[in-house]
Amino acid sequence: MINTLVAKVKRVLQGCRAIAASEEDVKLLGSVGSPFVIRVQIALALKGIDYKFVPENLANKSELLLKYNPVYKKIPVFVHNEKPISESLVILEYIDETWTQNPIFPSDPYQRAMARFWCKFIDDKCVAAALKSVFLVDEKERKKAREELLNVLQFLENELKDKFFGGKEIGIVDIAALFIPLLQELAEFQLFTSEKLPKLHKWSREFYKHPIVKECFPLKEQQLAYYKAVAGILAALLK
Amino acid sequence: MINTLVAKVKRVLQGCRAIAASEEDVKLLGSVGSPFVIRVQIALALKGIDYKFVPENLANKSELLLKYNPVYKKIPVFVHNEKPISESLVILEYIDETWTQNPIFPSDPYQRAMARFWCKFIDDKCVAAALKSVFLVDEKERKKAREELLNVLQFLENELKDKFFGGKEIGIVDIAALFIPLLQELAEFQLFTSEKLPKLHKWSREFYKHPIVKECFPLKEQQLAYYKAVAGILAALLK
Repeated sequence: MINTLVAKVKRVLQGCRAIAASEEDVKLLGSVGSPFVIRVQIALALKGIDYKFVPENLANKSELLLKYNPVYKKIPVFVHNEKPISESLVILEYIDETWTQNPIFPSDPYQRAMARFWCKFIDDKCVAAALKSVFLVDEKERKKAREELLNVLQFLENELKDKFFGGKEIGIVDIAALFIPLLQELAEFQLFTSEKLPKLHKWSREFYKHPIVKECFPLKEQQLAYYKAVAGILAALLK
Repeated sequence: MINTLVAKVKRVLQGCRAIAASEEDVKLLGSVGSPFVIRVQIALALKGIDYKFVPENLANKSELLLKYNPVYKKIPVFVHNEKPISESLVILEYIDETWTQNPIFPSDPYQRAMARFWCKFIDDKCVAAALKSVFLVDEKERKKAREELLNVLQFLENELKDKFFGGKEIGIVDIAALFIPLLQELAEFQLFTSEKLPKLHKWSREFYKHPIVKECFPLKEQQLAYYKAVAGILAALLK
């Protein structure tokens, strides 16, 4: 009885927020091609939030970026009514809490904890291995990175129980893992095959052709231009 | 009016949860002296949650630990009604969402985002620098690490606006940053002085003498035994 009442009141408040969103000042400082920026773009598209994209030249960072993210001086920076937030996963939690339509986090606290765990796993264990698998020049080193990547992706393969990590619809873990389908399509070879990781391979294709994702994914040339612009950062990562 | 109603209903539900907690099965797999385990212990103490501490021998990890955390095989693992959660910050969010009395996260979504940002900053930028400042054998290298630590701690110094990062009471950022006062007391020298970082220095002392913290902090010998047990991991980190 009390739960029903709380749910009803919450729905009313959510409606108010969704309407109010169009009157709010929403900005995203980013560079086309950055997978971390695309995470935020997909979340905003899923929620139907209008925003202004402020392109950043990574070779010559703007005063605005340095003001909004003095700690890391990195994109993406999300700015809501002049209040800046950095770090893509932190931004995604904020977006999901602020605009509650089409939730990207599970509502159950345990499932939410699991989602956070896998997002952290993706950032800590998969991102560098995937970038190394594509961009390392030395073939032997690249193969080694690919082995490492397959090992960590096996954990994600085991976690995939439905069409998406989020179930029937895209959720936070799908969004966090988007660089896998991105790099899989960008590389001239397959990062992993359907024989090795069948569920993840299928997921990668489903994710890539999802209408909202398609709308947010950049062209191959734009991605390559981005990786060229961050070559210095990439080189340090690939050491 | 609606907000008052929601708040009232929430308080009733919170009361029900607090009572229910005592009937639940709550376990913490950990080792005495691990700062990541102490994070969870302080959160549970602040909430007044009873739990069973399951000590882990890190030189000979238990079947239970490998079953509950097959990805990292690390402590802490928090187990609530047989459901395991790993990664200390993920555990802290779960605890705060499950037992809502004495909240450790801010209720405002923007403040919550900022708290998550600083927790991530602490784990990404401060932990390794602090451990290096204490445990590196080479004096020159150790001094270098200390310079690096002072640089990153300056950001935290600037963030400290009240008695604690959480305001008048301890919050999530204080709990995440606890290894600073821990190592400050453990080291035979001061990691930083009151001249260099006056606000953080004062915070460190206030935090250390907080009654809940005092109850959870291990003895120096226990801490040293823990760092001895993880010497291998530490050596890899200090490279």
